Amino acid sequence: NDSDRLLGGLLATGFDEATCLSRYQSSLYRKPSPYKPSPYLLSKLRSYETLHKRCGPGTEPYKKALTQLDQDHIDNNGECKYVVWVSFSGLGNRILSLASVFLYALLTDRVLLVDRGKDMEDLFCEPFPDMSWLLPLDFPLTSQFDGLNQDSSRCYGHMLKNHVVDNDKTLSHLYLHLVHDYGDHDKMFFCQGDQTFIGKVPWLVVKTDNYFVPSLWLIPGFDEELDKLFPQKETVFHHLGRYLFHPTNQVWGLVTRYYEAYLSNADEKIGIQVRVFDVGAGPFQHVMDQISSCTRKEKLLPEVDTVIERSRRVTIPKKHKAVLVTSLNSGYSENLKSMYWEYPTLTGEIIGVHQPSQEGYQQTEKKMHNGKALAEMYLLSMTDSLVTSAWSTFGYVAQGLGGLKPWILYKPENRTAPDPACGRAMSMEPCFHAPPFYDCKAKTGVDTGKLVPHVRHCEDMSWGLKLV
Amino acid sequence: NDSDRLLGGLLATGFDEATCLSRYQSSLYRKPSPYKPSPYLLSKLRSYETLHKRCGPGTEPYKKALTQLDQDHIDNNGECKYVVWVSFSGLGNRILSLASVFLYALLTDRVLLVDRGKDMEDLFCEPFPDMSWLLPLDFPLTSQFDGLNQDSSRCYGHMLKNHVVDNDKTLSHLYLHLVHDYGDHDKMFFCQGDQTFIGKVPWLVVKTDNYFVPSLWLIPGFDEELDKLFPQKETVFHHLGRYLFHPTNQVWGLVTRYYEAYLSNADEKIGIQVRVFDVGAGPFQHVMDQISSCTRKEKLLPEVDTVIERSRRVTIPKKHKAVLVTSLNSGYSENLKSMYWEYPTLTGEIIGVHQPSQEGYQQTEKKMHNGKALAEMYLLSMTDSLVTSAWSTFGYVAQGLGGLKPWILYKPENRTAPDPACGRAMSMEPCFHAPPFYDCKAKTGVDTGKLVPHVRHCEDMSWGLKLV
Ligand SMILES: Nc1nc2c(ncn2[C@@H]2O[C@H](COP(=O)(O)OP(=O)(O)O)[C@@H](O)[C@H]2O)c(=O)[nH]1
Ligand SMILES: Nc1nc2c(ncn2[C@@H]2O[C@H](COP(=O)(O)OP(=O)(O)O)[C@@H](O)[C@H]2O)c(=O)[nH]1
Repeated sequence: NDSDRLLGGLLATGFDEATCLSRYQSSLYRKPSPYKPSPYLLSKLRSYETLHKRCGPGTEPYKKALTQLDQDHIDNNGECKYVVWVSFSGLGNRILSLASVFLYALLTDRVLLVDRGKDMEDLFCEPFPDMSWLLPLDFPLTSQFDGLNQDSSRCYGHMLKNHVVDNDKTLSHLYLHLVHDYGDHDKMFFCQGDQTFIGKVPWLVVKTDNYFVPSLWLIPGFDEELDKLFPQKETVFHHLGRYLFHPTNQVWGLVTRYYEAYLSNADEKIGIQVRVFDVGAGPFQHVMDQISSCTRKEKLLPEVDTVIERSRRVTIPKKHKAVLVTSLNSGYSENLKSMYWEYPTLTGEIIGVHQPSQEGYQQTEKKMHNGKALAEMYLLSMTDSLVTSAWSTFGYVAQGLGGLKPWILYKPENRTAPDPACGRAMSMEPCFHAPPFYDCKAKTGVDTGKLVPHVRHCEDMSWGLKLV
Repeated sequence: NDSDRLLGGLLATGFDEATCLSRYQSSLYRKPSPYKPSPYLLSKLRSYETLHKRCGPGTEPYKKALTQLDQDHIDNNGECKYVVWVSFSGLGNRILSLASVFLYALLTDRVLLVDRGKDMEDLFCEPFPDMSWLLPLDFPLTSQFDGLNQDSSRCYGHMLKNHVVDNDKTLSHLYLHLVHDYGDHDKMFFCQGDQTFIGKVPWLVVKTDNYFVPSLWLIPGFDEELDKLFPQKETVFHHLGRYLFHPTNQVWGLVTRYYEAYLSNADEKIGIQVRVFDVGAGPFQHVMDQISSCTRKEKLLPEVDTVIERSRRVTIPKKHKAVLVTSLNSGYSENLKSMYWEYPTLTGEIIGVHQPSQEGYQQTEKKMHNGKALAEMYLLSMTDSLVTSAWSTFGYVAQGLGGLKPWILYKPENRTAPDPACGRAMSMEPCFHAPPFYDCKAKTGVDTGKLVPHVRHCEDMSWGLKLV
């Protein structure tokens, strides 16, 4: 069915299928999403694609805009404005921040260009028809990206702090520092007034490791448009993620081969994403206990019968459940696997436990490492029920792509499993880990998680914000 | 089909199914064996069962025979004679030696009694109807079992060496030392003349870690009977193994749960049994190379396409192959698994790689350890094609139970993969690792692998003997 294949119209037609098999094949591996993109979002995406094609790398408007970078201030508005996403942080963080910046581009009629960093090109297909989203390698500011920080002279927060923002002039480019360690002046990005100033600058360079979408909703001037784009508010990353992030054929091979070899025959698939932020080598007993307690209490996995009655009859197998565990450590899945090997389940269900990679530690710079990480996020998104770890953007990506409200394993404190071990998420949206708490009008602090019903504090991080 | 269930009449009817589910369920997990037991073997087994029931522990003849043990020599022949198998060595060795001793019991009309050792009772069901094969715990000689060796006074070889065998008297019991380190005098067991003497002794106690069946065939007086029992000579262990060794419900749970969770959906199952006798911690590169080279050359597993063409179309999956790897080390299966995850196969086949346990090192005394080892031998025996390691009795058991002619990974020398890496076995029979090379009539050395066409030197051990 063509609507399924195109995810209800989310995906544009006309791509060469062979160059990016995942784009049209991912629908074969997942149930159709119950969340349909709004017609308004679809038309917005189609016009974005037109804009992107008109202004993208190599076009006349692009060349013209580039020349503006030679000046400090610009005289007249060019035809196209840009926002450059700088490759930064772990893969989960990158995916979420890139989606945020894309939404910002949609809201501000900018063209998104992607700094390819070490491996963006190896991981993701081009999402827009007929025009690359990759920032050309000869972009004049690229060499500065690594050094950009809170104290860079063109950093908006820095300029505010030092009172060098001149509202009468339009800068040719501006750096937006939206990294988790950002300061109050950087956070002024989320104020409507500042957006007016920022909005005129033809080149924005953004470095962020956050999913800042929830706070965009609190900016007057954006909120109405967002309501129209996403009448189902919790679907922002679900739709944008599926629109933007198509694994390359190499990564798609990792996804499909694993799926076919280990998951496809199961009647039900359970994903368990284990991300441990404690220092020291795992596996940790308290994390193991937490996983067992959560999956048992929430009836995601059956209990085992440790009393071996010699006369027990083998019951006719009821159901085959495949458990997909992702973790840097192999201990958690080995433990589960042994348990379901050594003892029968009380329900008679057959439980297979599978873990694709066991990389041992985070290796953000290695190519295949991130390919495997992406493949695993994707595989998790293909499960029927998902358990994630608190604080982890890796899990957020999986839940969002999959359209799954996960059970979140709450963060253990002092190496003790929390009680309850986990809880069901309110929505499938990612959590914004470092939101501003500022009332731009009243110029005072405010609990931004209490302003509107659809922007709330996260389940896994009390100060975070998420859409529900 | 009842004939399948009873393995062509090999198994007696009338057992309580629930107490030993594997007995009648194993036929559900394997294709019917192409090797049918001979009617003569069946009738022999049925009369053995009658004998066993008549003479087994607790019966009057048993009690009477026990009293003979109080004397050095016996006056008159009792009704029943016994052979006691002493639990000794690794599990594979034990299974093979027990089958050998059972066959010897069949040939000599003795009753087999099994020293339960640490775990025989936890691993195997009772094979004979209505009467235990376990040696009663109060058997008077049990405390001596551990100390029995080549120099024991009642050791037949020792007595021969010291010329204390008196052909005119009949000993009440005799110890047969048939362990791999045995000497020329012990090996006289395989001479017809000595069998005449031994045959009169009511109690034989045997310690062995060998599959000595091939040499029984070279004893005149046994050979004709053996020909009648096993017209297909290479089926001895296949039939006797399936007749005798039924995993207990606990072990059967390990077998069936693993099978259902990881193997049952595959179109084809390949077993790879990796046993490395080199010292030092594996995995070893030369062993990995050997496995790849063997499975590739013998077309057991497809090659992978390491040239990722971006435009490659995912072909319709042809066939799903499950690879079952057993090894003390997890490295070999992890390596294979990564390879088939990271690269597509040239044939389009889907390859899943599975390893049940990774025990790290041989732990012969731990209960669950041997349960897992037995479960793995059984699982290997359920595969369609089997690759085994040279010299390993673990592999012999799997091939024999499965009725599989394996590809044998030849023994590496000097940490180098041999070329060719493996070769197809001539028959599914185990190899006798320490056969005698003696011509009993000519009283001279002889190459016992050259005497008859069906007793040959083994593929994996030049001095070993096997039936073909
Ligand atoms: N393959 C794999 N890599 C992981 C896993 N967990 C963490 N990583 C690696 O560690 C990085 C964690 O960074 P990120 O994706 O931003 O997730 P977060 O730190 O959990 O928010 C990932 O990008 C991976 O490189 C896992 O389960 N599987
Ligand atoms: N579970 C398991 N145990 C093994 C494996 N290989 C060796 N072992 C252990 O090591 C012992 C080896 O002794 P044995 O069975 O006589 O086989 P052999 O030494 O290979 O002839 C086994 O009984 C197991 O306890 C394996 O692949 N899996």
